[in-house]
Amino acid sequence: MKYEFSARAHTLLSSPLLSIRKQTRRGTLISLAEELPAEELFPLPLLSEAASTVISADAGALQYGDPEGYGPLREWLTGDWLGGKGVHVAEGGVLLTTGSQQAIDLLARVYIDPGDRVLVENPTSPGILQALRMQGAVIIPVQGDKDGLLPDHLRSGIRQHRPKMLFATPSFTNPSGVLWSLARRKEILELCISHNVLVIEDDSYGDLHFQRYDERPSLRYPSLYALENVSEGGHVLYIGSFSKTVAPALRTGWAAGSRELIGMMTAAKQMADWQSSSLNQRLLHHLLSVSAFDLREHITLLNREYNTRLKLMAELLKRPAWKSSVYDMPVGGMFLWVSLPEGLDAMALLRVSLAKGVAFLPGPLCSVSGGSERIRLNFSHPGRDELLLGMNLMSEAVSEFTARS
Amino acid sequence: MKYEFSARAHTLLSSPLLSIRKQTRRGTLISLAEELPAEELFPLPLLSEAASTVISADAGALQYGDPEGYGPLREWLTGDWLGGKGVHVAEGGVLLTTGSQQAIDLLARVYIDPGDRVLVENPTSPGILQALRMQGAVIIPVQGDKDGLLPDHLRSGIRQHRPKMLFATPSFTNPSGVLWSLARRKEILELCISHNVLVIEDDSYGDLHFQRYDERPSLRYPSLYALENVSEGGHVLYIGSFSKTVAPALRTGWAAGSRELIGMMTAAKQMADWQSSSLNQRLLHHLLSVSAFDLREHITLLNREYNTRLKLMAELLKRPAWKSSVYDMPVGGMFLWVSLPEGLDAMALLRVSLAKGVAFLPGPLCSVSGGSERIRLNFSHPGRDELLLGMNLMSEAVSEFTARS
Repeated sequence: MKYEFSARAHTLLSSPLLSIRKQTRRGTLISLAEELPAEELFPLPLLSEAASTVISADAGALQYGDPEGYGPLREWLTGDWLGGKGVHVAEGGVLLTTGSQQAIDLLARVYIDPGDRVLVENPTSPGILQALRMQGAVIIPVQGDKDGLLPDHLRSGIRQHRPKMLFATPSFTNPSGVLWSLARRKEILELCISHNVLVIEDDSYGDLHFQRYDERPSLRYPSLYALENVSEGGHVLYIGSFSKTVAPALRTGWAAGSRELIGMMTAAKQMADWQSSSLNQRLLHHLLSVSAFDLREHITLLNREYNTRLKLMAELLKRPAWKSSVYDMPVGGMFLWVSLPEGLDAMALLRVSLAKGVAFLPGPLCSVSGGSERIRLNFSHPGRDELLLGMNLMSEAVSEFTARS
Repeated sequence: MKYEFSARAHTLLSSPLLSIRKQTRRGTLISLAEELPAEELFPLPLLSEAASTVISADAGALQYGDPEGYGPLREWLTGDWLGGKGVHVAEGGVLLTTGSQQAIDLLARVYIDPGDRVLVENPTSPGILQALRMQGAVIIPVQGDKDGLLPDHLRSGIRQHRPKMLFATPSFTNPSGVLWSLARRKEILELCISHNVLVIEDDSYGDLHFQRYDERPSLRYPSLYALENVSEGGHVLYIGSFSKTVAPALRTGWAAGSRELIGMMTAAKQMADWQSSSLNQRLLHHLLSVSAFDLREHITLLNREYNTRLKLMAELLKRPAWKSSVYDMPVGGMFLWVSLPEGLDAMALLRVSLAKGVAFLPGPLCSVSGGSERIRLNFSHPGRDELLLGMNLMSEAVSEFTARS
């Protein structure tokens, strides 16, 4: 039959990520395009033990759970925040979701009507842009520098567009890897509070902080959510995830905010899929609070390894092919955000790279508009050999273009 | 801060189910309101073994998977259909979702614009109504009898409203428990095909067929999807789930349809939450295809037990309090759809029942409009003692009203 899809459904089909994913899974491609953690570091034995214990202990682990998610895991999160960061989470102020992406989507659905103006830190993650486009938002980019969003730019965006909200990733922005300074965090938050702009803070990468990884980075760079917490004004919705720090297939992210906002998102969650897997949530809770697993130690291990991979990638970018490329060296996250030699177009480079067997994320997917002079390279997933081979192929592809010009 | 929620967000807050769920979990309520399977029948030892095997075998089980879901489980479903029902599923024609509810929601998002007319078998499940209301559909009820939707009523609905689609549950409609006859299935399908109306067939309860439970009910009552399959016209989107037949906490449902429709839903799935838990999907696949678990045998066991519970509930409805109530005895599913003694209002009865410690689903939640003269009672979850106590409390509540009038 001839289908009549909804007006904005076509916005979903723009992403080349779907086909890149497929080719990578077939083993025909080295992918520097995605945001996968290193699976060789997953705590498999402890997870396996947790799974069999949880399932054997209580048939309730396989039953329907609550739409807001497994209570003890929500309490664990609340306790972790209070103990680790001194942050008080509102009662009823946490919702467990299917990864951080679902938190973004649910928020968009309960808060945005078509035509609503939404400010977005630019560049940003493809997932945020997709959810906003599907909801019909008018997306307004806000620029930043190495310390975070530019307050003047934000202020004029607010005055000109009277937006409902701001999407930002203050810690290791996807894709640029920027870590906002404390001063900038305070300034941006203050601006949003004074103009009644809701801030959606995606902190999916915040724990992947490589500098002095023996300390708790959270003590030095409080989230916007933590900064506002004392006044409890509810201007910040915090989004976190266990996908990068434990394992993505558990599909457990969360949103934290005021009781009113989380209540509305919970109602949307119930409508969207009743609830995420309470089995996975119980498994995580067992891992975090019963087993020998130590999340902070595990994150330290991840950060040491990811830092090594980042440095290797940076070394490989010193090769001649990349001599007119520039990038800022991040101190965390999963990505390098590289500007291409002048005149080289990211989408054109992608076609050549795919033919050679390597993929990356072209800048336009991370950009409100434009972005074709940049590419995002993931360094967390490829092991040493894969990284060497992948970057060799990338260098070849770049050289083909630069040799021509 | 003062939040500005989207225009239709308030449609989400109408359901009393959220608070019923909460009270039930606290143990302060006997719930005949929900659609929970009996957890004492979950195949726990085999699931526990599957979980530890799957996690130990391959770190890939904890990594991000594909948005369309774990390939081998999709292949298992395709093979099960071909072997069990002779139905050919299109290549790329299956999407795994977070339960059947997510399949409904994703379809609604890619197919419905605000103001689009949608036909709905009436009464229907609260989940279908919520997803349609959130999407801004104009919902048009279609009435049925004990053999399924009334073709004349459907025909006039199509002519008058020119709808995009029809939502129906031909096997054990939630809440009414109706099993459409074969003749009616063919007639309704034919009507929809000839008017280019997309049919969304929710078959979440189809396997819970109590009559002659030693045979495969599917051989006698093909789904609309199976009936159209030969022509491959793509007019039917089939929605199924393992929530009722294996365990809900695995959160694994699926949609099957044409490659084009499933492709669009997969793009929406990626935007909504990237993917459901591939760990749970692998666990299910291991259970179904490697372990000693036999799904057909397990379903036979479920049906024997549920039939016993249904009969007990029907016995309890013979008590004096219910003497002017009527209902059709279903041959499957999870619910009795009971009309109340005349003049008794379902929402008023719910308030009294909750005070006594028992909950049911009031008819208006299952109805496009009206429905206050009916209630939905779940018989699959409560064990014998709980059912006796719950129905005693229900009888007391009903008597309080009928004694007054």
